[in-house]
Amino acid sequence: MKFYDCATAPSPRRVRVFLAEKAITIPTIQIDLRNGEQFTPAFRAINPECTVPVLVLDDGTSIPDAIAICRYIEEIHPDPLLMGRNTAERAIVESWQRRVERNGFYAVMEAFRNFSPGLRGRALPGPDAFEQIPALAERGRARVQHFFAWLNARLADYEFICGPDFTVADITGLVTVDFAGWAKLKPPEEMTHLRRWHAAVSARPSAKA
Amino acid sequence: MKFYDCATAPSPRRVRVFLAEKAITIPTIQIDLRNGEQFTPAFRAINPECTVPVLVLDDGTSIPDAIAICRYIEEIHPDPLLMGRNTAERAIVESWQRRVERNGFYAVMEAFRNFSPGLRGRALPGPDAFEQIPALAERGRARVQHFFAWLNARLADYEFICGPDFTVADITGLVTVDFAGWAKLKPPEEMTHLRRWHAAVSARPSAKA
Repeated sequence: MKFYDCATAPSPRRVRVFLAEKAITIPTIQIDLRNGEQFTPAFRAINPECTVPVLVLDDGTSIPDAIAICRYIEEIHPDPLLMGRNTAERAIVESWQRRVERNGFYAVMEAFRNFSPGLRGRALPGPDAFEQIPALAERGRARVQHFFAWLNARLADYEFICGPDFTVADITGLVTVDFAGWAKLKPPEEMTHLRRWHAAVSARPSAKA
Repeated sequence: MKFYDCATAPSPRRVRVFLAEKAITIPTIQIDLRNGEQFTPAFRAINPECTVPVLVLDDGTSIPDAIAICRYIEEIHPDPLLMGRNTAERAIVESWQRRVERNGFYAVMEAFRNFSPGLRGRALPGPDAFEQIPALAERGRARVQHFFAWLNARLADYEFICGPDFTVADITGLVTVDFAGWAKLKPPEEMTHLRRWHAAVSARPSAKA
């Protein structure tokens, strides 16, 4: 297997943290997103959508999506399970992972990509150019505040997002809160549950990934 | 189990088609989204995010996400498998399902929800009010055209989105193309591969769901 990564980018960090929790190392190739390496013919041959992460299997099959990669790794290296231990848990973890991604990760992406001067004309990842929409940056910032409040309320009742166990939903949550910092958005002091959880997941060795 | 549905809405249709492919019937409760039933205290008790679909298990566990529901059903009723038959296939199906959803379904949602007069102040699903952004409706329309071209290119080489087998990625694709019709966006005549596939998946009995 080969893992196409970009050490500074949030999306592939989800996979890096997932691998670190399972203590797995995969030969890794860094793609320099800042200098446009994702748009070169060489990388387009690996992923025509010009995004990382990508996992390429030994038979050449390419898996160009963070959560699809995590599912593959979960099945070949089940210890520790990070996507649920039985049918109901797997559905619950998936529903939380997807909601944290939709309500949080995509909202930060809206806020950051529609604002950052370095991303003019690149408001969405991928091969197609889209101009920034200032109103969308503003909406993204409002959505991130809703997301913080929603997650804080959840974490008032549970140690981790899905309950007593650390799961891939916590990985998406951790990466999202840290990514929000790029848009200068931080959970406010009074959100004590969210801050307690963020300190705990940030203290795990995997968070350095 | 109980399935909370809205017979006219695209998101829960993904689950309805999935259930129909497996010939499963689940007791179903219709939620009248048009008249705001999703915002009533009774429905908020089932899903505080005010969206359908929701699957409620016999022990009261609530699964409020279309794809998480499909995964649950896939495990308890594996025949026919719609999310892959082995580890690599499951990852590939997931990567396509997620890309069709991100590049297609969410793009149509942008185009439709930021334009439809009936959705003023409701540009995103969920409990929080967001005003429509006209530039986002326009961007959504452009993204849907890119999505059509991308899917047409894929379907030049494969019978279904993931290869020779019908999967959940085709269900997301079918629902997305039909949903695009709500925003008066249709695959153009010259996209013969996409139109061939759309005619084929629309002719399956499950498409009536």
